[in-house]
Amino acid sequence: MIVLFTDFGVQDPYVGQMKAVLAQQAPGVAVIDLLHHVPDYDIRAGAYLLAAYMPVFPADSVFVCVVDPGVGTDRLPCVARIGQRWFVGPDNGLFSVLQQRHNQTEWWTIQAPQQAISATFHGRDVFAPVAARLACGDYSGLQVTPAPAISGNFPQELAEIIYIDHYGNLVSGYRFASLPADVQIEVSGIVVGPAHTFSDVAPGEPFYYCNSNGLLEIAVNQGNASQRFGASVGDPLQVRAVG
Amino acid sequence: MIVLFTDFGVQDPYVGQMKAVLAQQAPGVAVIDLLHHVPDYDIRAGAYLLAAYMPVFPADSVFVCVVDPGVGTDRLPCVARIGQRWFVGPDNGLFSVLQQRHNQTEWWTIQAPQQAISATFHGRDVFAPVAARLACGDYSGLQVTPAPAISGNFPQELAEIIYIDHYGNLVSGYRFASLPADVQIEVSGIVVGPAHTFSDVAPGEPFYYCNSNGLLEIAVNQGNASQRFGASVGDPLQVRAVG
Amino acid sequence: MIVLFTDFGVQDPYVGQMKAVLAQQAPGVAVIDLLHHVPDYDIRAGAYLLAAYMPVFPADSVFVCVVDPGVGTDRLPCVARIGQRWFVGPDNGLFSVLQQRHNQTEWWTIQAPQQAISATFHGRDVFAPVAARLACGDYSGLQVTPAPAISGNFPQELAEIIYIDHYGNLVSGYRFASLPADVQIEVSGIVVGPAHTFSDVAPGEPFYYCNSNGLLEIAVNQGNASQRFGASVGDPLQVRAVG
Repeated sequence: MIVLFTDFGVQDPYVGQMKAVLAQQAPGVAVIDLLHHVPDYDIRAGAYLLAAYMPVFPADSVFVCVVDPGVGTDRLPCVARIGQRWFVGPDNGLFSVLQQRHNQTEWWTIQAPQQAISATFHGRDVFAPVAARLACGDYSGLQVTPAPAISGNFPQELAEIIYIDHYGNLVSGYRFASLPADVQIEVSGIVVGPAHTFSDVAPGEPFYYCNSNGLLEIAVNQGNASQRFGASVGDPLQVRAVG
Repeated sequence: MIVLFTDFGVQDPYVGQMKAVLAQQAPGVAVIDLLHHVPDYDIRAGAYLLAAYMPVFPADSVFVCVVDPGVGTDRLPCVARIGQRWFVGPDNGLFSVLQQRHNQTEWWTIQAPQQAISATFHGRDVFAPVAARLACGDYSGLQVTPAPAISGNFPQELAEIIYIDHYGNLVSGYRFASLPADVQIEVSGIVVGPAHTFSDVAPGEPFYYCNSNGLLEIAVNQGNASQRFGASVGDPLQVRAVG
Repeated sequence: MIVLFTDFGVQDPYVGQMKAVLAQQAPGVAVIDLLHHVPDYDIRAGAYLLAAYMPVFPADSVFVCVVDPGVGTDRLPCVARIGQRWFVGPDNGLFSVLQQRHNQTEWWTIQAPQQAISATFHGRDVFAPVAARLACGDYSGLQVTPAPAISGNFPQELAEIIYIDHYGNLVSGYRFASLPADVQIEVSGIVVGPAHTFSDVAPGEPFYYCNSNGLLEIAVNQGNASQRFGASVGDPLQVRAVG
């Protein structure tokens, strides 16, 4: 299974062009569009989202991850083996949260061909071809060299909004299981308490909960938390002891 | 064939997470994204849209339908057999228009596992696994029990706007074939007459017609009816005799 | 491989309905969503985009192209063989730039069945079934007749904005390789110089470059050129000699 994780958006032709490469070079392999709306250029948000979404995918899944504001600079293209999955993308920090959370990790630098690749679309020209080979289990001809370390060093938990879904729910980079007991969460000056799910609070009431990927999320039952709080990606959350 | 019909939107990771389950549990089965922009939480609009779109799909197609504002409440997850297709989703009225229009229908309640499912994402954790089994023709191990009736009771035809497409065309829940002859349609205080297709009226002129799914739809030739009429989902239409 | 290129958008049910036809009539054939956000009804923009995107697709790919403001008029549905690929869609100019750039081209008019097709959705009812047969290499039963010529006559290069991506980058219909040496590009009264890629200019600085499909494109490093220039699809570009 090949899994796509980018900030390309779903309107532009970039995802389709990557998939055309994959369909030719890894025919018959399932390709899943996991997320193409990582906040634009936001490596840090992407790093926490990727770490949260990865566990439900089967072993040997190949993730093609492109949040790459430095395309064309000297950041290196890389392959990582983390938690039994493969990750292909820019070595710019996008894989660092994953790497911190798993013991057995390996990584390689991709020797991109200097010819026939564009200066601005490594997703199609560098990452997709490597992902296709990995997905086919064909490691011959991969132009990679072992790398000393993967880039990036983010905190274990990030008490910030890293994604806002189309319902207006506010996703944070904080794992719910890491929250202390008996806390409230403050966002935009408003303090909210916990609930198990939407229907546990009255319509219009905000609450925090463990979302379906294990992250702390803030929502309003039958409402739009983003509009209600005037919240944006990057806004901080405060974790406060009750009392 | 598995057909997805939700209000998840196309930007968020929810569709991809459902598809990852389907790719693992029903490998090789075609998965079609029919619509992920059912108006948010709008069970009634969803019920009429689903009934209109269903007929072109082949027998034994499996529809995964998730418009589910009550996820986490006591609404039951269900499987329905309607018009030779399978439907999996919440028993909250979403299947009621389909059920009214077909004679031979059967339904079951899904016994969702109490462990290992999230409180907020039954599409991934309950409905997709059941759909995968149905699509593979593997009914063993399905934890379902016959149910007495399906929920919901909506009128046969709905003279309301239930969907606005990106061109601004106004889709109603009224089947064109059920319209009386020689009528005009009033929406937002403006009265429009019939045409067969766009080019039958002058540029800029509004008209009503039978859309490609058999529903009454209002459009403006080379224009945006939604902006022109200031129309929203839920706005009523008046069917008026001419003269 | 079947490639979809339309102005249907990604929110509406139209793409899914076409894919349902393809999945039934060309089972197992990969279907790639290349672009569903051709500017609405903009045949000319579509013609240049299609010509730019086509070369990376393999021989015998079948493109289903629907930018069709004249559906229901007397414009003819057609099949074209251009540059070893197949193209199915309305004969309204959409294929004319492709045709100008390739020597060996052939075209046919599709005899659409008069029954069982909608007046407004030829993508699903006429073009997809023909594309399915071509993709399966089954030319028997195709109701086509040789056509004398394909419609449309656009200039070789178009110094206009034809697409704006979600990052705000401004794509033109001018092939970069056709630009004279030592030029600057003026758009919205602002003059920009060339760069190889984003990181070659300072953050916030605009530049022009050869995009990953060979077209002249204008961008702002770490910024949004569309907002910066107040630019829209259709705006002209001036190519100016330096000095």
